Amino acid sequence: MYMDNLIKSGETLDDLQNGYYIIQKKKAFRFGVDAVLLSDFAKIKKTDSVLELGTGTGVISILLYAKKKPKSITAIDISEEMIEMARRSIKYNNLTDSIKLFNMDLREASDLLGRGKYNSVVINPPYIKADSGIISLDEGQAFARFEINCTLNDVINASFELLIPGGKLNMVHRTDRLVDILFLMRNKGLEPKRIKFIHSSPSKRPHLLLIEGVKGGKPDLKFLDPLYIYDKDGNYTEEIFNIYGRIK
Amino acid sequence: MYMDNLIKSGETLDDLQNGYYIIQKKKAFRFGVDAVLLSDFAKIKKTDSVLELGTGTGVISILLYAKKKPKSITAIDISEEMIEMARRSIKYNNLTDSIKLFNMDLREASDLLGRGKYNSVVINPPYIKADSGIISLDEGQAFARFEINCTLNDVINASFELLIPGGKLNMVHRTDRLVDILFLMRNKGLEPKRIKFIHSSPSKRPHLLLIEGVKGGKPDLKFLDPLYIYDKDGNYTEEIFNIYGRIK
Repeated sequence: MYMDNLIKSGETLDDLQNGYYIIQKKKAFRFGVDAVLLSDFAKIKKTDSVLELGTGTGVISILLYAKKKPKSITAIDISEEMIEMARRSIKYNNLTDSIKLFNMDLREASDLLGRGKYNSVVINPPYIKADSGIISLDEGQAFARFEINCTLNDVINASFELLIPGGKLNMVHRTDRLVDILFLMRNKGLEPKRIKFIHSSPSKRPHLLLIEGVKGGKPDLKFLDPLYIYDKDGNYTEEIFNIYGRIK
Repeated sequence: MYMDNLIKSGETLDDLQNGYYIIQKKKAFRFGVDAVLLSDFAKIKKTDSVLELGTGTGVISILLYAKKKPKSITAIDISEEMIEMARRSIKYNNLTDSIKLFNMDLREASDLLGRGKYNSVVINPPYIKADSGIISLDEGQAFARFEINCTLNDVINASFELLIPGGKLNMVHRTDRLVDILFLMRNKGLEPKRIKFIHSSPSKRPHLLLIEGVKGGKPDLKFLDPLYIYDKDGNYTEEIFNIYGRIK
């Protein structure tokens, strides 16, 4: 099959079990539960224009397309290498008309794509501050994990500029950044409206959170029921099976 | 026993099951799980000077004294009626040398008690904004539940003024105020350092939170393991039994 030419050495083609596939490097950043949870959490309508910031392999945009079929999806990434790989995944899935990719710094996105254009911004940002510990990863991994190219403040400022009034930022992040997240969102005028905490199991503190902020929204935060990934016996919970659906 | 003269008509004397008792009105605000959880959560040393804001019946100060024996406890309340009742509980328990009560508006407390004097401020504040729905309760209940006499901002400003540098604010509050709490604390310089969410059961979203803020602290929020009040069968959890100890 000629499509196999799209996969390079050192890469794998993984079945998303929903009719779509993703090309990933064997040894670099591979999509995880964060991407699946975020694409499930985001409330997206069929009439929405969606922008994904820092798409990496493109997996979240592909999952969003598969689950929610919004009017349009635009996805950007600062890494030329990642965009090149994501472009091959999009091509493999015949989604070139549905997901538009741009190699772009999110700090320049509102200038290049236009202000107030998107109903929804989706992002799985780097979780760790750039000054936290030694960085010894390849470029794709380092950009995905550390705030090298963009701080949380950059993400929130860019999202605010790109969203229409009433538009929604949907983000997954680590709970140890909770104060930064809520402080910066309210400060910018992206009012936190929905939050869901993710625990590895019920006896553990939450380590991840999903959050929705609304541009110009009134203060009124709704907590969703928590999500436990494993039950007390170490098996996946029913909610995880429901979210993954047929995606392993 | 002459001490029984301390209890007035319409009041009850309740056994805290730790050697101490509390006088409460039969039909007004009675202490709940919030007070017990807060007194357990607050990290207080034997050398600490502790201030409780809005003490009401005095129950939190009595529980703190019983559990942690700090060097001193001062407790204030804006309601003369509540202070009068709390004074009788303190007297009943022979704690007049250990817990000092003042009828005082917390907004004036730093002027009257002195700035930067306390290692720890403890508060179970009114949870609900004054503009949220109709208020038709007696004074003690209304002051305890609605932000009539003090907003969350007043609480945080007063705490900041009263604490020494490095001193700790310990608060219990409702999760729907999470953004307000974290935003105002960081804004004032009372950095949130420890947070614990309380769920009625593991399948439910958290409805209460316990939070510690440190005056002048560096950003570094630690999540504690969640607390579930009931297990999935509707029985109290082991952690609740542990916290209550012999207190019902």
